[in-house]
Amino acid sequence: VHGESRIYARSASDDKSPIVAMLRAIDALRAARTPLSVNLKFFLEGEEEAGSPRLREMLTRHAHLLRADVWLFGDGPVHQSRRQQVVFGVRGVVGAELTVYGPRRPLHSGHYGNWAPNPAALLATLLASMRAPDARITIAGFYDDVVPITAAEREALRNAPPVDEALRRELLLGSTEGGDATVGEQVMLPALNVRGLRAGAVGATAANAVPAEARASLDFRLVDSQRVERVRELVETHARAQGYHVVHGEPTPEQRLRHARVLRIDWDPGGYPAARTSMTLPVSRAVRRVVEEAVGGPIVAVPTLGGSLPTYLFAEVLRTPLIVLPIVNHDNSQHAADENLRLQNLFDGIELYAGVLARLGHTWNQVDRVRF
Amino acid sequence: VHGESRIYARSASDDKSPIVAMLRAIDALRAARTPLSVNLKFFLEGEEEAGSPRLREMLTRHAHLLRADVWLFGDGPVHQSRRQQVVFGVRGVVGAELTVYGPRRPLHSGHYGNWAPNPAALLATLLASMRAPDARITIAGFYDDVVPITAAEREALRNAPPVDEALRRELLLGSTEGGDATVGEQVMLPALNVRGLRAGAVGATAANAVPAEARASLDFRLVDSQRVERVRELVETHARAQGYHVVHGEPTPEQRLRHARVLRIDWDPGGYPAARTSMTLPVSRAVRRVVEEAVGGPIVAVPTLGGSLPTYLFAEVLRTPLIVLPIVNHDNSQHAADENLRLQNLFDGIELYAGVLARLGHTWNQVDRVRF
Repeated sequence: VHGESRIYARSASDDKSPIVAMLRAIDALRAARTPLSVNLKFFLEGEEEAGSPRLREMLTRHAHLLRADVWLFGDGPVHQSRRQQVVFGVRGVVGAELTVYGPRRPLHSGHYGNWAPNPAALLATLLASMRAPDARITIAGFYDDVVPITAAEREALRNAPPVDEALRRELLLGSTEGGDATVGEQVMLPALNVRGLRAGAVGATAANAVPAEARASLDFRLVDSQRVERVRELVETHARAQGYHVVHGEPTPEQRLRHARVLRIDWDPGGYPAARTSMTLPVSRAVRRVVEEAVGGPIVAVPTLGGSLPTYLFAEVLRTPLIVLPIVNHDNSQHAADENLRLQNLFDGIELYAGVLARLGHTWNQVDRVRF
Repeated sequence: VHGESRIYARSASDDKSPIVAMLRAIDALRAARTPLSVNLKFFLEGEEEAGSPRLREMLTRHAHLLRADVWLFGDGPVHQSRRQQVVFGVRGVVGAELTVYGPRRPLHSGHYGNWAPNPAALLATLLASMRAPDARITIAGFYDDVVPITAAEREALRNAPPVDEALRRELLLGSTEGGDATVGEQVMLPALNVRGLRAGAVGATAANAVPAEARASLDFRLVDSQRVERVRELVETHARAQGYHVVHGEPTPEQRLRHARVLRIDWDPGGYPAARTSMTLPVSRAVRRVVEEAVGGPIVAVPTLGGSLPTYLFAEVLRTPLIVLPIVNHDNSQHAADENLRLQNLFDGIELYAGVLARLGHTWNQVDRVRF
């Protein structure tokens, strides 16, 4: 099997790969009679894509079994340069479904167009009021809780290999949001992503009608120390400032008649905050060094991944630092059509995990003695 | 059969009803041995919903057969008050499909959100730049060719029965576009209708991804004397002013890489301008009077219907005035689910057409003698 071959399957990368790689790493160490340098505990959670609704309860109930010095996480992709990366944080996330209402039934756009409110046009205006074309979020107060990045994080960002130009060409992007900022710099900031729009119909099935409603699906990516509750408040306050009466379920006929504009917001259950482990902790330095040794070359230290994992709970409930050692290819199309795993990433991942298990304990002892 | 019963079927109102009503009216006059007061020519056109691409050619080729003093059209609904209306004009229409491009494939919204341009957010901003929440079109120059309404038209609008409040309540509208303007006043202006939006997914199928593209389907309703070609130019000029490179087919990879933002516009074939027959012509006054006599009560004289018909061609090619005598109920849900015909409207329509055929010739002679 050639390393450049790929397995195409739902979840091939996200998140079967690190589980398979870790199990094979242990098998390999056993076969080679190489002793582990650390004690191991495994925790597998299968509801992350659904917002991990039971994770807090599991960690709380089994806290005594889950005592550890550090948690290593296998989710997420390696750097776009294909270099191994060590990731110290993740963005938080909260999603929402927005519905704006027009007439109770679709109306002929000739007879009623520019008299009956057009919910698709209103939704467009509302979204445009929340987000500038350069991706800056224009909801009042949205950046109030964003903590500045540290010196170590700034240094790590500066040392990351340049990937933007290659990515831009691969993705056919004539420009990127945030101007000259790199993707690494941009994910240190919160994001408002429009993941979907639905109203009426387009193309061959489009009808000359004012739609009855328009929907948008959003996700917000959060950074330290934004709180989900506060983000929800800011969004709803913003919508009210745009003239909307905000409801959280199907509005009644009376509500629709009484208010000039009605916005239904359904917040996704299970949003959660960001989490960042300090890059200067002894364990952070030890993991970084042992990974460098395992791959035998330069690695990429990443202050935060753009994606989201509920790792804040490990800090909050277990009070244990958490570091991410991802192995899959960055171009794996996760959460989209044609998800795939590049086989060389699986092979490299097995070796990485075997190296970490065999040496982390020893390296950590050295780091602790040196007292960084 | 009760007059309040309805037939639910595609095209039940739009546009089978007036054809059936006219044929039954002729049958009824024959059965009653009532002579026609005018000579009759029929012209049936079956491609109006597709933009009537062959209408001009048919009118031109058969102009000698189609010579007439006036054309009476049966399309469209009666007034929302259920009163018979005589309609002297229609709005024009031109549709367009807009596509904004993001990354060549959907990207994880965590890892790439606020770096890879979000086409759904960009499309929302573009649409918001084209239309204010009060429905005013904010494309530079859009109102330049809009002719002011005449004294007769203003008087007709003033005398129309009030329907807005009842409509507003029936449709659950907490507000209407254009503030205090009535629906009759609003359709004297051009409209920008967003008939559909599509990007990514919403609700249960929403994925945390930056969509690869976003689409909007629009229709513009035009009034005298806006020209379709000019509207297309203004829209494209506006998009360019918003930073878009405008293309009219699938953009090439080179085009997408070379331009910060690319917008594909596919104009619907067969857009056409508005048309208005002067309300003060002798034939206009004669039709109005004979309809009043036929229904035995007040009617509604409407300067222009909000909807669109390619009637401008009858003026342009045949140089013949055209007046619309619609018969179907206003709440027929045409162009949408549950299209229906209220039977009383069909019965009234048969009587109306029979009365017009029996008396229009005589009334016209009187009107011409009086020289309005």
